[in-house]
Amino acid sequence: MSLEKIFKAESIAVIGASRDEAKRGHQAIKTLLEEKYEGRIYPVNPREKKILGLKCYSSVLDIPENIDLALITTPAHTLKKILGECAEKGAAGAVVVAGGFGELGEEGKRLEGEMVAVAREKGIRIIGPNTSGMISVHKGLNLVGLQDVPQGSISLLTQSGNIALTLITEAGLKSQTGFNYYVGVGNEADIRFHEYLEYFTADPGTRAILMYVEGLREGRKFLQQASRTTEIKPIILYKSGRSAKGSKSAGSHTGALAGISEVAKTAFKRAGIITVENSDEMFPIAETLASLPLMEKGSIAILADGGGHATIAADYLTELGITLPELQEETRDKLKALLPPNASLANPIDVAGGTDQNPAIFADCAEILLCDKNIHGLLVVGLFGGYGIRFAKKLAFMEEDAAHRMGKLVRKKRKPIVLHSLYNFAKPHSLDLLRYYNIPVYDSLEIACKCVEALSLYGNYRREYHKEKSFQFHWGEKALPEGREILDGALAEGRKALLEHEAKELLRLHGAPVSADCLARDEEEAVRTAGEMGCDVAMKIVSPDILHKTDAGGVKLRLKGEEEVREAFRKIIKSAGEYRPDADIRGCIVSPMSREGVEVIIGTKNDDQFGPIVMFGLGGILVEVVKDVSFRVLPVSREWAASMLGEIKSAAILDGVRGRPPCDKEALVDLIVKVSEVIEAYPVIHEMDLNPVIVHEEGLTVVDARILLNEEKVQGKKKLSVCLDETDESDTNLQAEGL
Amino acid sequence: MSLEKIFKAESIAVIGASRDEAKRGHQAIKTLLEEKYEGRIYPVNPREKKILGLKCYSSVLDIPENIDLALITTPAHTLKKILGECAEKGAAGAVVVAGGFGELGEEGKRLEGEMVAVAREKGIRIIGPNTSGMISVHKGLNLVGLQDVPQGSISLLTQSGNIALTLITEAGLKSQTGFNYYVGVGNEADIRFHEYLEYFTADPGTRAILMYVEGLREGRKFLQQASRTTEIKPIILYKSGRSAKGSKSAGSHTGALAGISEVAKTAFKRAGIITVENSDEMFPIAETLASLPLMEKGSIAILADGGGHATIAADYLTELGITLPELQEETRDKLKALLPPNASLANPIDVAGGTDQNPAIFADCAEILLCDKNIHGLLVVGLFGGYGIRFAKKLAFMEEDAAHRMGKLVRKKRKPIVLHSLYNFAKPHSLDLLRYYNIPVYDSLEIACKCVEALSLYGNYRREYHKEKSFQFHWGEKALPEGREILDGALAEGRKALLEHEAKELLRLHGAPVSADCLARDEEEAVRTAGEMGCDVAMKIVSPDILHKTDAGGVKLRLKGEEEVREAFRKIIKSAGEYRPDADIRGCIVSPMSREGVEVIIGTKNDDQFGPIVMFGLGGILVEVVKDVSFRVLPVSREWAASMLGEIKSAAILDGVRGRPPCDKEALVDLIVKVSEVIEAYPVIHEMDLNPVIVHEEGLTVVDARILLNEEKVQGKKKLSVCLDETDESDTNLQAEGL
Repeated sequence: MSLEKIFKAESIAVIGASRDEAKRGHQAIKTLLEEKYEGRIYPVNPREKKILGLKCYSSVLDIPENIDLALITTPAHTLKKILGECAEKGAAGAVVVAGGFGELGEEGKRLEGEMVAVAREKGIRIIGPNTSGMISVHKGLNLVGLQDVPQGSISLLTQSGNIALTLITEAGLKSQTGFNYYVGVGNEADIRFHEYLEYFTADPGTRAILMYVEGLREGRKFLQQASRTTEIKPIILYKSGRSAKGSKSAGSHTGALAGISEVAKTAFKRAGIITVENSDEMFPIAETLASLPLMEKGSIAILADGGGHATIAADYLTELGITLPELQEETRDKLKALLPPNASLANPIDVAGGTDQNPAIFADCAEILLCDKNIHGLLVVGLFGGYGIRFAKKLAFMEEDAAHRMGKLVRKKRKPIVLHSLYNFAKPHSLDLLRYYNIPVYDSLEIACKCVEALSLYGNYRREYHKEKSFQFHWGEKALPEGREILDGALAEGRKALLEHEAKELLRLHGAPVSADCLARDEEEAVRTAGEMGCDVAMKIVSPDILHKTDAGGVKLRLKGEEEVREAFRKIIKSAGEYRPDADIRGCIVSPMSREGVEVIIGTKNDDQFGPIVMFGLGGILVEVVKDVSFRVLPVSREWAASMLGEIKSAAILDGVRGRPPCDKEALVDLIVKVSEVIEAYPVIHEMDLNPVIVHEEGLTVVDARILLNEEKVQGKKKLSVCLDETDESDTNLQAEGL
Repeated sequence: MSLEKIFKAESIAVIGASRDEAKRGHQAIKTLLEEKYEGRIYPVNPREKKILGLKCYSSVLDIPENIDLALITTPAHTLKKILGECAEKGAAGAVVVAGGFGELGEEGKRLEGEMVAVAREKGIRIIGPNTSGMISVHKGLNLVGLQDVPQGSISLLTQSGNIALTLITEAGLKSQTGFNYYVGVGNEADIRFHEYLEYFTADPGTRAILMYVEGLREGRKFLQQASRTTEIKPIILYKSGRSAKGSKSAGSHTGALAGISEVAKTAFKRAGIITVENSDEMFPIAETLASLPLMEKGSIAILADGGGHATIAADYLTELGITLPELQEETRDKLKALLPPNASLANPIDVAGGTDQNPAIFADCAEILLCDKNIHGLLVVGLFGGYGIRFAKKLAFMEEDAAHRMGKLVRKKRKPIVLHSLYNFAKPHSLDLLRYYNIPVYDSLEIACKCVEALSLYGNYRREYHKEKSFQFHWGEKALPEGREILDGALAEGRKALLEHEAKELLRLHGAPVSADCLARDEEEAVRTAGEMGCDVAMKIVSPDILHKTDAGGVKLRLKGEEEVREAFRKIIKSAGEYRPDADIRGCIVSPMSREGVEVIIGTKNDDQFGPIVMFGLGGILVEVVKDVSFRVLPVSREWAASMLGEIKSAAILDGVRGRPPCDKEALVDLIVKVSEVIEAYPVIHEMDLNPVIVHEEGLTVVDARILLNEEKVQGKKKLSVCLDETDESDTNLQAEGL
């Protein structure tokens, strides 16, 4: 595939090469030489003969052989011409450093678009523009000008050069591992996150992918690729630009659309991505996931040489959902034989001075603990590594012995050990030894705990969730001719919304249990229909010009018998006519009043980054005031739909409270999946709002349904006089008999 | 006061002094000598003549002069005798190192109690037992055996020696400040947290108090002292032992009762304490508050030399509630003149390479920004300190110039500057200079942001909240003779609860608008009472033996007219008799049905650590299912009561939703304050439950009230046949007409 030649380039042209040490075109060549890049370097600058001992060419076209890759440091306006020349010389890609593109507004966006068009036409791919560059660390192909990038098994994708610098510095100072690839994705004008991801997924040298993301240009493709990647290797992602201010700052930075939300969080989680919320945790979590066996279950032992650290770790792990199981009898007995009588053998285990004379006992404890079948990992907290510093020098050798044994133990038992050490800063040899065995060591208790959490989260994901092929989008597959007809009819009339009975008909076609409505065009039809229903009915005005039915006096509920129906019909038509004299009034919907149940709301929206999403919540104040809702990116499987129900704070209501029976959650899950199908089947649908849906003890009823259409698809036949941006709040919940 | 002589001891006896280097009684003397303790040291050990060159005494009593303080390292059982001898020699206090007391269960608790009794009798105070010791750093009075404790303006109170070691290590490595006092409080058998706090509050050398707390023995006294302390200097508190596992670990550690909760969080906040939730933030926040001027308002500028750091900081500060205001026109103009055209002059400010040739420009920017009247502090993020390392050596001198200027700027403008630097690890001279000026520097962006938050939180507290003298407890002051009579009556009958009409009467005495109930002893009285009320009524059984009234068929609502009342009375009495044939039935309460309104619940409980607390929430599912409640430690002022209303997630309901009018929040605040008064007035009240209270557009009605009494005060006249631990859930909410 095309990125291979870029990341493994054997020859590179540096366009904008310079003798000025402060210039990027100088630094890049210097770094390539220093890092002993394995390929050939061709400086290009019409005003120079030689740069750093290398022959300089006045144009790319003068280079005597074809090139694999170009680093272009010249200004934005030169790009179109230069890209063409690079393509002519066979370059698979170009790293475009210049800013002045999409991040600077409309004019820049135009320039960016033109550049990409040239690239597409000539068959050359672009990293950037507005990028810090890229590095293939193992090849010495360093186009960033950052020295001393430690080599290792993490590949890094970032939208900020400074964050990359932070991570590289941290890796160099505190880790045994480093990076295999580095890409500053810049404005993502051509190559997008998901394409880099795909390349790194196939790369055997990459064990974990670390991402700093300010905004995603193609959220759905990203999720799709990510869910494939995380079946094989972990993705650790920090999403910034969450606040308006942060987003603004990110905006001026890469021109990407920023923003995070509950939607993004659940979408990332569902794709198996480990989301990091504190930038201090980015590198440690990537390091841990690249280094250690995953945890089969989130059950760990804490081994401590002091109460405070054990307490903090136990608190925090518990808050993170990690369990600290009781030890088996046998484990306790073995520890008891090894440790002083006042040692605490509950989990956390406190050695209570039992290692003071011989810290190698840590390894004995570790072995005993990892043999316990309930224990799937070990967190050692406290002073390990510092016994030789704090107490007596000879203890250091015992610590080193323990390090060797713990290192081998991880390999043998396939269970992870994570270390917290107060003496990390002093770089004792024993901690270097642990790192040699790929056991990471942290000086922050909280970070060590978060690493344990990541091992558990990703372990769980790999064990449980990868069977489900989520985020596979098959637009249109489930569409039905009758459904298309309904939508086409509305589009042909230039409408931006389906009428209520059309929306319900569309849902019914896909098997959703909508209320058994009928359109009554006149009074007599209303009376007959209500009679046939043989129960109390509701009536609602039908008009493409009236969206806020209640405001128009267009809703009457609980109508009993012919007289009430007749009178209600007359009143509704009259009142609607007064409300909007020019309205195209098509009659009234007659619906049977719904059986009792719990009122819920299901809605879909279009998210800027991830496309269609679905929202679920309980009707009434819980949605309106408490905002107790859950979200998923569509499509959803039954499993994901079911998980939405449990996620809301008021979930217990679905199980029945105050003597009510539990409501039919299976039916609710069915409906969410059907909504997912409908949205997937008809891309013309912009938003859907099922409000209320009444969930009964058995089954459910969709009482009201609203479907809005994509404006760009509407072929305007007439000007609409109603505003579709407002939602018809006053009309919701009226028919609910629920809580 | 008595702690003065302990912390400033001029002479000290080390009881259990030893020649064995591994023993605490050796290390302590060695450390005192090394740290050049200013006072006199008297080793005590009957088996030694000389230790570390000092004459050794066979008993405290042999010491030729009186002593100020004793360090006792001998085992638990020796303490009673030794403490007596120390007191005889005039010692004001003793540091008791031994474990084996309260933390080891009942036997240890007994031993601890006996030791404290001796101490109280002889007039000697105890630090510990089970303590790592104490240090008066400025005097070299180091009884912990930890070397190289950096001196500074933070005083440390901790329940874990390892955490102290962590903090001291961190201070030595990364800070310009250190500690004035250190106390390992151990089991707090005698001297408690609040007493140390009182001493540090008066100590001129202490600018901030840092606490690691696993459990508080006297929560109310602690809050009382803390609210006095924080008027003068900040308290930074990390509370561990939050989870069951952590609590268990803490339990085996100091024997204190652990546990944190929303109650604790709000109580700490109200006392002006800065609560830290990540142990990595403990020292930095204490350092910042000890070093920098507070922020007048939470409005700050971020000055960055790269997008990523600025974005992360902007996101996180926004999430922490810190605002990043727009700059004034004048500020922007001045920055524009200084920085390159592509610099971002929105807040965050990105210099966009403007400091690459001259990092001293950071100081120019800082001065311009701190002159802006909307900007109350500055966070500098990125590479500052590393320009001389990364780019060219001469830039280091410019950074040093900037450091001097920023240091002076903070003093001149009385606005704080906090720094994040990626190059902190390299310890460049410019960052040392900043620390010399008391500007702290962090390598974690998130920690730097949390420090900014702390400056704002504590600044706000000092500016706004200290006027309110909260946590002043005046038990009994507001009690009324009639109230005492009601309670005494119930106690005399051996009851553990007031009857409903008694509870309401007590509340009415204190001005609470309870429903206008009457006790009807027979049918005729019920009919007459209902007739006088002239509206629909509710009736409820009155019997000390029936707490679950609904279960007993003892509640009838919405009764209209004589016939319904008569029939209801008969049915209630009959049904109650069947439910519990031996019940002492006193009749029925007749109440007018309440006007419409929003149903709320106000309850009080006794918290293990903080005593009486009040809970507020909206009635029905919001309390029962969503658990949407807020808590305060009692007593509460009007301001604190009002803040409870805004804190719940469903707060908007009080302002009127779905066309309902707003409800009378003032009346609700009144009621909470009255509940506070009643609880304060009658310590015999164990719990109170007002459920429901209906809040109208004007005024409110307490529809049901339950008051439970302290069991130890109940003089059992007869055995109660009902279980009072259960609350009568089935009986709640029935009379509410609200949401």
